[in-house]
Amino acid sequence: MSRYAPVPFPQVKLEGQFWHERLDTVLDRTVPSQHKKLGEYGILDSLKLPKPPPPLRFPRHANGFTVQVFWDSDVGKWIEAASYALAHRRNADIEAKIEAAIDDLEKAQAPDGYLNCWYLGREPDKRWTNLRDNHEMYNAGHLLEGAVAYFQVTGRRRFLDVMERYLDHIYATFGTGPGQRRGYDGHEEIELALMKLYYLTGEKKHLDFAAYLINERGQQPPHYFDVERERREGGDSKQPYVFANYEYSQSHKPVREQDKVVGHAVRAMYLYTAMADLAAELDDAGLKHACEVLWDDVMETKMYVTAGLGPSAHNEGFTHDFDLPNQTAYAETCASVALIFWAQRMLHLDLDGKYADILELAMFNGALSGLSRDGEHYFYANPLESDGTPTRWDWHTCPCCTMNVSRLVASVGGYFLSVAEDGVAFHLYGGIASDVEIGGVKVGLREVSNYPWSGDIAISVDPETPAAFDLALRIPGWCQGAKVQVNGEEADAAAAKRGYLTIHRTWQASDRVTLDLPMPPTRLYAHPGVIMDAGRVALKRGPLVYCLEEFDNPGGRVQRIKLPRSAELLAEPRADLFGGIVTLTARGTAIDEGDWKTLYRTTPALQTPTSLVAIPYYLWSNRGQGSMMVWVPEQPG
Amino acid sequence: MSRYAPVPFPQVKLEGQFWHERLDTVLDRTVPSQHKKLGEYGILDSLKLPKPPPPLRFPRHANGFTVQVFWDSDVGKWIEAASYALAHRRNADIEAKIEAAIDDLEKAQAPDGYLNCWYLGREPDKRWTNLRDNHEMYNAGHLLEGAVAYFQVTGRRRFLDVMERYLDHIYATFGTGPGQRRGYDGHEEIELALMKLYYLTGEKKHLDFAAYLINERGQQPPHYFDVERERREGGDSKQPYVFANYEYSQSHKPVREQDKVVGHAVRAMYLYTAMADLAAELDDAGLKHACEVLWDDVMETKMYVTAGLGPSAHNEGFTHDFDLPNQTAYAETCASVALIFWAQRMLHLDLDGKYADILELAMFNGALSGLSRDGEHYFYANPLESDGTPTRWDWHTCPCCTMNVSRLVASVGGYFLSVAEDGVAFHLYGGIASDVEIGGVKVGLREVSNYPWSGDIAISVDPETPAAFDLALRIPGWCQGAKVQVNGEEADAAAAKRGYLTIHRTWQASDRVTLDLPMPPTRLYAHPGVIMDAGRVALKRGPLVYCLEEFDNPGGRVQRIKLPRSAELLAEPRADLFGGIVTLTARGTAIDEGDWKTLYRTTPALQTPTSLVAIPYYLWSNRGQGSMMVWVPEQPG
Repeated sequence: MSRYAPVPFPQVKLEGQFWHERLDTVLDRTVPSQHKKLGEYGILDSLKLPKPPPPLRFPRHANGFTVQVFWDSDVGKWIEAASYALAHRRNADIEAKIEAAIDDLEKAQAPDGYLNCWYLGREPDKRWTNLRDNHEMYNAGHLLEGAVAYFQVTGRRRFLDVMERYLDHIYATFGTGPGQRRGYDGHEEIELALMKLYYLTGEKKHLDFAAYLINERGQQPPHYFDVERERREGGDSKQPYVFANYEYSQSHKPVREQDKVVGHAVRAMYLYTAMADLAAELDDAGLKHACEVLWDDVMETKMYVTAGLGPSAHNEGFTHDFDLPNQTAYAETCASVALIFWAQRMLHLDLDGKYADILELAMFNGALSGLSRDGEHYFYANPLESDGTPTRWDWHTCPCCTMNVSRLVASVGGYFLSVAEDGVAFHLYGGIASDVEIGGVKVGLREVSNYPWSGDIAISVDPETPAAFDLALRIPGWCQGAKVQVNGEEADAAAAKRGYLTIHRTWQASDRVTLDLPMPPTRLYAHPGVIMDAGRVALKRGPLVYCLEEFDNPGGRVQRIKLPRSAELLAEPRADLFGGIVTLTARGTAIDEGDWKTLYRTTPALQTPTSLVAIPYYLWSNRGQGSMMVWVPEQPG
Repeated sequence: MSRYAPVPFPQVKLEGQFWHERLDTVLDRTVPSQHKKLGEYGILDSLKLPKPPPPLRFPRHANGFTVQVFWDSDVGKWIEAASYALAHRRNADIEAKIEAAIDDLEKAQAPDGYLNCWYLGREPDKRWTNLRDNHEMYNAGHLLEGAVAYFQVTGRRRFLDVMERYLDHIYATFGTGPGQRRGYDGHEEIELALMKLYYLTGEKKHLDFAAYLINERGQQPPHYFDVERERREGGDSKQPYVFANYEYSQSHKPVREQDKVVGHAVRAMYLYTAMADLAAELDDAGLKHACEVLWDDVMETKMYVTAGLGPSAHNEGFTHDFDLPNQTAYAETCASVALIFWAQRMLHLDLDGKYADILELAMFNGALSGLSRDGEHYFYANPLESDGTPTRWDWHTCPCCTMNVSRLVASVGGYFLSVAEDGVAFHLYGGIASDVEIGGVKVGLREVSNYPWSGDIAISVDPETPAAFDLALRIPGWCQGAKVQVNGEEADAAAAKRGYLTIHRTWQASDRVTLDLPMPPTRLYAHPGVIMDAGRVALKRGPLVYCLEEFDNPGGRVQRIKLPRSAELLAEPRADLFGGIVTLTARGTAIDEGDWKTLYRTTPALQTPTSLVAIPYYLWSNRGQGSMMVWVPEQPG
């Protein structure tokens, strides 16, 4: 099969209602307000070196770690998101703000290329002494992603030059050569950023260093983090490692030997993304196999139904199989965003709809839930159940998720289409237009739909000249009974293989394909190993997971409500909600709280009939505080 | 009503099977093995000053806190538990070990009386600079409790002399007088220890300082913890407070104004215990009222059905009303032990069975669950549900709970009886014998029963000479239809008031009272505000909360099981289990895990009939790892 490559987002125009609204919000509100917050929280000031470091405003842990050590990354990620925004609409004010940050970074850079504002400002002598905890390479990676994005959109090289000087310093410092340290990052990120730079420049040194980091990770004995700890703290005063094990950073064994998804979820997802990149680029079957084994592990035992990842706040990550608590779910927004990255890489390593299904699931649920309707409030953790306590924040002490969701939305068009020499693949639907080149022929593509609210999809294929190529249409895994017509003639949708129906023909201007993806409301049940979901049911329609929110089900906490198994689920369009959505409704039963006086009693609660209304999960907590649940207790009968 | 005072445990002989076994285990296994662990973990060595401090083996937080700062308290608590053990059986080896620790403490004591081994060994100049976090008064309190217990059992004053010198130093340093600091403890404990010393010695200065600590707590502005932080860190480098608020230490407002139970659960319970002590001793209606308001708050909104307290590991404490997650329940053993202390003080402030009910509930469930059957393994956190991951530990980095449960069991007899000038009250049953003095007459009491397995209770009352007094028998709140006979004649059990049936008569030698407390298996339901327990039912019999454990319900995780509402619960004596217990059995249904391949699917799980076996909660996790649940999903019908 031919190798597909994503069509970059600037070539994909978002025309559909769903993404158009999200994109406008991010461009108009999120990106500017994030810059304001970066200023208010002192993050922009932290780049202005030399100047006396401000007092520590955040706790510093035994190992020297403070959230401030990753502020550079927040700036990098904002520049990346802002650059994507500029690709949609140039904006002199935003550009000036990016340039000002680049000014600061350029001035801060040490003569030898080193550029980490935390260390330069506070502890210049201690650079590279604690890769395990202190995020220098992670910061470099995010700055690099920002520099790549800014260059791609504006053609301005200055930031990229700064970062390339920094990378040369890093390449000289670390590696397997004589006099080099065999270090690698405690928080993976730079690997995937280096792959982006490699794709941009074609310079092999970037690919090589990414491969070095991947290959060196977890090699032992000795473990590099032990070596640097010994050097840092001496033999005597061994500060214990806060996270107690190397699973936390997926450095417990070489990556090719890893077969269980462990540790910090975002770290893991960034690592696997780069592993998949490298596996594709180097045609490395061992690495590809490791990716596939890890993919199966997370899919079979560790993913929330919303595509949230990492149940535990303690390690911001994974625990053990089937441990998916709902109310305390960490399910960090960043982790679902990073899962999208990984899924996209897997999809291009092996065009299988199962990857696109998860990409879509994470996009519409676990990732998008991190951003409020107004574009200026966030969830860092994305619980699947709430007693009404959690609410969206306008910023985070550790603001990683805020810019992860803005950069995702600002570049979301990049996940819709891929092209190969002899074909084009549609992974997502939702109303896009794009001009692509297939086998040397320019082809205009337009997909018109009200997806994800409706599965009625119309695609026009307009090659400049008639051309024979594959049109691969993703038939989502959640969809039964898809129908496809080409110029009004039924195609055999059942011929779809591994999630894609491939239509090969000589395409002519004005060819029309229609796709009917039925999306009746469905019930999902969790593996009995997920003890939290025993006796419960999740509601889904198309790619959207639904939840009950108190706002639509007034009268007490939504946990009072049960859904009878026999109750019919109805999809109800609601133009009055969130600019037009589809809710799910059903009859249910509800417990009466009114007659309770004590905490425990021997008589069960009274139950009365009620009706229930579910909204898409990603929209929860946009109308004030209130209880919410995804997994609804099911009542037999 | 006359004022009742507890009959101290050495005067109460435990003869019944239940407590006899627990006591023997603690004397023979727990106390000796705890001393061994204190040695292995360097805790005993930490008293041997002066000598170079060992390397930090535990993380030190930004505020200087490390678990090692409360090692003195662990020694104090072990001496207390060991002293109680000696009251049952003198043991030269244990006494030598206590004396050795006292040798070290005596040598370590500074000339001015100060005695905190962490500060003396590491940072002698920093003593009393961080009452908020660093546990100096807390340690002093536990050492004092140890000294009081050791003196009471052996009559040896040396440790008590050491502690009284230390207290004189503390009294000179803190207070409202000129040149004194208005400090108080960040972790309450010393207050209740001072009350014990006051009861022992009658010296008013101890009562006065306890009252000072209680009264000063939470006074502001300025808040003392702010004052000392300013002094410690200067104006500029304000390390943020790890726990971010003064609710954590119940110092957010003066104690008489507190009406919600907040913060660290053990801190709160120790504080309330001392408040109730003081309210009784000073006849302080305001303090009594505060205790009652706080009691109602925790009972109505914050207590697990096992009498576990504090759902959150984050603050080891309370969160918000009805937040009682099962699997992640912190419910620290120490907190349930401390609830027993508080309940006992409340009971003696106001003889109401509601306090004894909770005392008993905590004893048989949330506290006792912290100690394994073999007496050498522990739970620090006591979850109400498990997927099989948690298991008992043989020690804890922070071993506070281990000695809390051993000192409780070693002194458990002290919770059974109270006497007044004109009466005796039975709070607990389980087979005890005691000689008490009532109005100058010696009265032999024997209570024979197989409680908590059976509610058939026989009490003999043998006054030396015929004497008129009250016999107050607790009729547990969980009991319906209690029957009482005096010398074979029916008494009017329905005349019981506030949990006690008071029988006034002229008692003669060989008077016999029988008490029949029916204990059918019962179902309990939680307030709908406890969203985690919606649709679930807890099983109880007498004072014991039950749980399903995988060991008795093989075939997968117990969470596969549901209990039909109509299923009859049967109490089944099982001589083969744990030396003889009563299990509960019922028919149920179980989900079939066998046919699951994916994490989520659209078809519900298959259910098949099964039978279920529940064991007392306190016995879980004694037969290897396996899943467990207290709140069982209920099936209508």
